[in-house]
Amino acid sequence: MMLTAQQLAEKINGKLIGDGTVQITCIANTESPAPGSVCFVQDTKWLKRLEETEVACILVSDKITSSSKTIIQVAHPKIAWARLLEFFFPPRSFSGKVSGQAAVASSARIGKNTTIEPFAHIGENAVIGDGAVICSFVSVGDNVKIGAKTILHPGVVIYENCIIGQSVTIHAQTVIGSDGFGYVATPDKQIKVPQVGNVIIEDEVEIGACTTIDRATIGSTVIGKDCKIDNQVQIAHNVVIGPHTALSAQTGISGSSKIGAHVTMGGKAGLGDHVEIGDWVMVGAGAGFPSGKKIGPKQIVFGQPARPYHEARKQIGAQLRSAEMYDDIKKLKGKLAELEKRLADTPPSIT
Amino acid sequence: MMLTAQQLAEKINGKLIGDGTVQITCIANTESPAPGSVCFVQDTKWLKRLEETEVACILVSDKITSSSKTIIQVAHPKIAWARLLEFFFPPRSFSGKVSGQAAVASSARIGKNTTIEPFAHIGENAVIGDGAVICSFVSVGDNVKIGAKTILHPGVVIYENCIIGQSVTIHAQTVIGSDGFGYVATPDKQIKVPQVGNVIIEDEVEIGACTTIDRATIGSTVIGKDCKIDNQVQIAHNVVIGPHTALSAQTGISGSSKIGAHVTMGGKAGLGDHVEIGDWVMVGAGAGFPSGKKIGPKQIVFGQPARPYHEARKQIGAQLRSAEMYDDIKKLKGKLAELEKRLADTPPSIT
Amino acid sequence: MMLTAQQLAEKINGKLIGDGTVQITCIANTESPAPGSVCFVQDTKWLKRLEETEVACILVSDKITSSSKTIIQVAHPKIAWARLLEFFFPPRSFSGKVSGQAAVASSARIGKNTTIEPFAHIGENAVIGDGAVICSFVSVGDNVKIGAKTILHPGVVIYENCIIGQSVTIHAQTVIGSDGFGYVATPDKQIKVPQVGNVIIEDEVEIGACTTIDRATIGSTVIGKDCKIDNQVQIAHNVVIGPHTALSAQTGISGSSKIGAHVTMGGKAGLGDHVEIGDWVMVGAGAGFPSGKKIGPKQIVFGQPARPYHEARKQIGAQLRSAEMYDDIKKLKGKLAELEKRLADTPPSIT
Repeated sequence: MMLTAQQLAEKINGKLIGDGTVQITCIANTESPAPGSVCFVQDTKWLKRLEETEVACILVSDKITSSSKTIIQVAHPKIAWARLLEFFFPPRSFSGKVSGQAAVASSARIGKNTTIEPFAHIGENAVIGDGAVICSFVSVGDNVKIGAKTILHPGVVIYENCIIGQSVTIHAQTVIGSDGFGYVATPDKQIKVPQVGNVIIEDEVEIGACTTIDRATIGSTVIGKDCKIDNQVQIAHNVVIGPHTALSAQTGISGSSKIGAHVTMGGKAGLGDHVEIGDWVMVGAGAGFPSGKKIGPKQIVFGQPARPYHEARKQIGAQLRSAEMYDDIKKLKGKLAELEKRLADTPPSIT
Repeated sequence: MMLTAQQLAEKINGKLIGDGTVQITCIANTESPAPGSVCFVQDTKWLKRLEETEVACILVSDKITSSSKTIIQVAHPKIAWARLLEFFFPPRSFSGKVSGQAAVASSARIGKNTTIEPFAHIGENAVIGDGAVICSFVSVGDNVKIGAKTILHPGVVIYENCIIGQSVTIHAQTVIGSDGFGYVATPDKQIKVPQVGNVIIEDEVEIGACTTIDRATIGSTVIGKDCKIDNQVQIAHNVVIGPHTALSAQTGISGSSKIGAHVTMGGKAGLGDHVEIGDWVMVGAGAGFPSGKKIGPKQIVFGQPARPYHEARKQIGAQLRSAEMYDDIKKLKGKLAELEKRLADTPPSIT
Repeated sequence: MMLTAQQLAEKINGKLIGDGTVQITCIANTESPAPGSVCFVQDTKWLKRLEETEVACILVSDKITSSSKTIIQVAHPKIAWARLLEFFFPPRSFSGKVSGQAAVASSARIGKNTTIEPFAHIGENAVIGDGAVICSFVSVGDNVKIGAKTILHPGVVIYENCIIGQSVTIHAQTVIGSDGFGYVATPDKQIKVPQVGNVIIEDEVEIGACTTIDRATIGSTVIGKDCKIDNQVQIAHNVVIGPHTALSAQTGISGSSKIGAHVTMGGKAGLGDHVEIGDWVMVGAGAGFPSGKKIGPKQIVFGQPARPYHEARKQIGAQLRSAEMYDDIKKLKGKLAELEKRLADTPPSIT
């Protein structure tokens, strides 16, 4: 893969400033700028660093107008760069065929150009959309629907009756539709509440590896359109998540919680049951929400328990000075006792 | 599935109050009360809400004696409702046959009516009980014993020599018997302590998806009868858990800890090694226990580090006012300095 | 397996003190000392306890010179004991053959004495080293390299282009090379940043079950030689970990963080992105590191946020007395108000 800066600029509809004949041989990120590469920067601080390297060309926003390197102005440098990644590293292609070593129920309906790899298992009455990819060791349960162009990486398990939309990507070993955690504790025995609902994953969702999403007790656990869910996330029964929401790794969401649209959560966030989080909320890494907590839209929250940014910052800042506070209180007690003593010693003044 | 309230009352040995001819077409939960459904309530607050919906019939305790809806009195409304779920949604049935596409060692002993799905792998000298279900992509190691009526969902891995009881359910991708995390660190190299024990899962245990339970270094890691373990729980080598204990998702228990009977833990609890927790203890979500910590029976504990309910509540309540405390201390310092100054300025009174 | 204490001492090059004819029938650990067993102790406290049991022989350091039991002095009692575990429990052997029920791409290169179990899937141009073991349900992606004597337990998934060294052990269901979590959020849509790098696992690494290690966006996520990683650990894109480092269960490391050599982390540690941790650092269980945090070498750190041991201990100790501090401040306020009142009441003294 080799092209000139001029060719690259045309390819991404950018405005070239500088030498258009420079050869671009690869793509790199700002932190590891390879010689001859195209990179992107978001600010002038990084531009200066890159100018001292052997990168060939830098994607910039229109705020940056000159450089000792060849630059290409684009509306969104990182998005342009992300698209170039696919140009330099074309995604893996699939056979579009059903392997003779797969186990496909005779009642299943398989779309056109669908890839089913060896040792995949497709259950009764399952429907697999056109162009979908079902990798090895994927278990598609009875009556499951998988939308067109969806990719299930090796080892994904979809329990019966779940519905997966179009252009969904699910990474290895993730489990969709396992039973919700519901029991009635009695003195003798835990009595199971059967989990008879399902999971609905809407279009364009991407889910990481070793994530678990439980089926609803009744009804559906729902992951909204274009949600992005990282590795080792746990989503319990009857949770509903709005579109475009992003959950980082090792986050856990308990039963019946409702998460809005465009929410982002840092890693290891923990939500009790019946928590409600409004649209566009940003949740800090490690934040904890007690059961039933409601967070209105468009806020930044963090801490344990999670509180709005300014409050959490102030309180946690003070907590980190607890030892100083403890010492100050001790000193105050001493001084006060001294004052009291002095006052007691002062003989009454006689006027 | 359709029956009258009268038929339903007879079915569950309940006492019908109201119109017994009303038709019941489905089952629902209180939060999503479908028209024509049977629901249950635990208190009068929810009863009032349901009376305003189109539900057909409500299961209640004998404390509730009248309603504008048809009600059925039962000893435990939620348990009665849980059992009705199975009536409306009969559980999945299995073939009771061994697939020709499974790999079963010739030395393995397979019970009667045992289902072994395509691409399951059964090791040498394994014993699979009557009516057990071994789904696709399950690996049953050499010398493993699986009890009667146990279900291993797709992708479950049981390492060699482990013992799984009767009527156990293990959800997809869960790993039983992986090596405990034991090394001796030297300046040059981590030296592995071989993990030669096993895991014993007693009868009627249910384990969620993507959970890991390590084999003992020597001896057995033990999960007691009727324990219920959620998704993504980590249980380390030589842990012993008593019967009827419930562990919520993403909880982690370090090596050699001992958990009593009837314990419940909220999500993301973290236990160091050699922790001991007594019977009937309730552990709050996110609680942390340092290594060696001992918690007596019948307590509620939470926080980091975990402490008894009243203490933790008081301390955490105060921590959340750290900023106010910090400000108060500042003010107190100011006032005290002022007082000291005033006293210093006060000329000695002459008597 | 049966031998005399004398034979055992010769086997491990130890110095026998006491009766060399005593028969040793098994091996046990200090906490469950079986009759006739060989155990080890690190100190005299445990030695005394073992002297009251029916163990046959105890491995000790040369600081311990006499006992009522037969003892064997060795340089490192725990290491000697760990090696004896392998003697009493010889590790599982493998067939060294490729199963006819495996799916191996014709372009893959398979070494000598390599075991490939039924239902393993080896992709195009993959290279599997001599004596490696690929268990059932393992997916080895296209162009993956697996070093000699490496063991991949059932269900391990290695995505395309990743490189696994020699004598590596990876436990069941672990995923190597899934996509990093990288998107550009726009008001309409999350735009994916293609993840075109890989993962490199160096020699002698051991990784637990259900752990996930993401491929780099560009370049490599690197796990250094002899690292030991527990179950359910999450390692994000472009993380680099030095040799001999040990990470306990449920730890999460965000993108581009750099961890030094010989680092140890307790369970559930959480690191933001671009964190840097120096060599020989010890991280306490549950410690949290905000993005960009830098920790110099040879420190013990813990807490949320993680701080050096003495500081964290002091601050957390004081935090745990927040309620007392709150009460003290209240009392101080009261006393101060009283003093102020008394002073105000004191009529000016006339001199």
